Amino acid sequence: MTASQDKRVETLRWCDGHLEMIDQRVLPAEFRYLRYDSAEAVAQGIREMVVRGAPAIGCAAAYGVALEALRQRDASTADFTGRMERAFEVLAASRPTAVNLFWALARIRTRWQSLASQSVPAQADALLAEAHEILAEDIRVNRAMGEHGAALLADGARVLTHCNAGALATAGHGTALGVIRSAVEAGKRISVVADETRPFLQGARLTAWEMVQERIPVTLITDNMAGFMMSRGEIDAVIVGTDRVAANGDVANKIGTYMVAVLAQRHGIPFYVACPISTIDMSIADGAAIPIEERAHREVTGFRDLQWAADGVLVRNPAFDVTPAELVTALITERGVIHRPNRERLAALTATP
Amino acid sequence: MTASQDKRVETLRWCDGHLEMIDQRVLPAEFRYLRYDSAEAVAQGIREMVVRGAPAIGCAAAYGVALEALRQRDASTADFTGRMERAFEVLAASRPTAVNLFWALARIRTRWQSLASQSVPAQADALLAEAHEILAEDIRVNRAMGEHGAALLADGARVLTHCNAGALATAGHGTALGVIRSAVEAGKRISVVADETRPFLQGARLTAWEMVQERIPVTLITDNMAGFMMSRGEIDAVIVGTDRVAANGDVANKIGTYMVAVLAQRHGIPFYVACPISTIDMSIADGAAIPIEERAHREVTGFRDLQWAADGVLVRNPAFDVTPAELVTALITERGVIHRPNRERLAALTATP
Repeated sequence: MTASQDKRVETLRWCDGHLEMIDQRVLPAEFRYLRYDSAEAVAQGIREMVVRGAPAIGCAAAYGVALEALRQRDASTADFTGRMERAFEVLAASRPTAVNLFWALARIRTRWQSLASQSVPAQADALLAEAHEILAEDIRVNRAMGEHGAALLADGARVLTHCNAGALATAGHGTALGVIRSAVEAGKRISVVADETRPFLQGARLTAWEMVQERIPVTLITDNMAGFMMSRGEIDAVIVGTDRVAANGDVANKIGTYMVAVLAQRHGIPFYVACPISTIDMSIADGAAIPIEERAHREVTGFRDLQWAADGVLVRNPAFDVTPAELVTALITERGVIHRPNRERLAALTATP
Repeated sequence: MTASQDKRVETLRWCDGHLEMIDQRVLPAEFRYLRYDSAEAVAQGIREMVVRGAPAIGCAAAYGVALEALRQRDASTADFTGRMERAFEVLAASRPTAVNLFWALARIRTRWQSLASQSVPAQADALLAEAHEILAEDIRVNRAMGEHGAALLADGARVLTHCNAGALATAGHGTALGVIRSAVEAGKRISVVADETRPFLQGARLTAWEMVQERIPVTLITDNMAGFMMSRGEIDAVIVGTDRVAANGDVANKIGTYMVAVLAQRHGIPFYVACPISTIDMSIADGAAIPIEERAHREVTGFRDLQWAADGVLVRNPAFDVTPAELVTALITERGVIHRPNRERLAALTATP
């Protein structure tokens, strides 16, 4: 396994004029990079969850735009403009819930608009530079969140997390797992309890793998064991990532997050959400307006090629749920920790330049 | 699939001098009976979950004792007694949580003690008759629970259930699914939402299969989707079975039941427990004293031969959790519905002969 030689997991990397992304569908059994050369291919990679995790999806989309610009660098300005608009469209349609996708597309579009007077090749180069900057910034943001969040964790804390909000969900370090990594770097003894996170098993496959790589003790449970662990006093804090936070502080995240938050409240356990500012969507009043993706039924009736459910059963497969702001102890952002997030606090946070 | 010809699922059946049990590890892909001839073999079948579900385990244990008596029918009285004691021991050690196992063993032991003056072959015949009666009684009890419980479900109700408390968990009809079956027989349109119930997937494999067989509409979700469904107003009631109810009304049931109960309370959804009197353990003051089985780690790191979790991860695998009585809207028993179960109500219920 290549990554075990190098502590830093490069979820996305620019290599030899191409975007390469770790194929997260096959981890941990297999560690491989897939290579991408067009917006269409990147959109497919996002849709099929080769790459997942809100910040990583944002980075991938930015590279998707840049790749398309590079592919079209010999086109006329008119052709270039048309093909770029199509690239934005196909990327925006890849997945609906994570707002970082739309944030990254809006940011790189603003950059593109500022380049209108330049040649097509110059535009393409500038868009690639912007994608690189989005990726580099994501790592800086995760580091800053990590430092702010680490202060919330006591030495010896047993921290439950749901899904994977780790290096694999970002350009590096991670959001929720970034906080854990930063606490460990600060000398705290942290142990992690990972929900397996059906149906895609991001907890069992990705979070467990990341923690094992770094020798941070990690205990795997099925999603339905979180309540048992809390009732036995075996969880001190919960930290999760998020795909979109509404203006009132409601949090959309991987399906099952809401259940964990309800249980944490019952047991008086703090429920933290690691959330880069780019994940806050002030255009949406509350969680009810966040679009929730429904994915393929076969994800629920089995795993990969193995189907175990009875034929003839109906299926629901919402990929996300919404945790109301009242259940959130604090948002951990790169600008600091926002306790008891609400409309006023988020407005103040996002108004600062 | 043999069972589709016959509506009644015979989880256990006496056939040609042997006990036969449906192999619940391989359903629904394969429908097969396994044959048992000794207490030791039945204990292994219980341990490996060929048969599971508290009432079905009780029936299996009773047959285990009877099979051992038949195997020893040519033994001297002294040898017979020793071998029977060993049979009781091995069966009692098969699984710790479901009290029906111990209830059935105590009942058949009482019967055995009443036979002390009879010949060994006569004792063996009488013990087999007692096992038959325990099985027949379980079906009658389930039918009675079904009729009492059906009155709680409105026409059109969307009922969430966890694990499998169906015909496959009993001698027939089922406890929680028995209530649903009886409501459907009474002409109500009921639809079922089945939690898949990791790690053994009783919901996806067994509950879904039972409901599809009977054309009761059933929607499969992963365990972490129950909160989403409730928050969207898509669940009208929850019904589950139980493995042991303590004297104060605390309910041990399949891992994840507690989470469902907490969510149901938050959403004002009634949480019903279908519970034969034999599942109430008045010798245990509250849920904290109920022994919780921890099963093999490989159940959590994958499913059957497929392992998906990262190597090196630690694992917890509690098979049950405890739902405090305060979260239980009502117990549905064969003697009627006990609203807001507590110590006084359970004492009164179990004191009646």
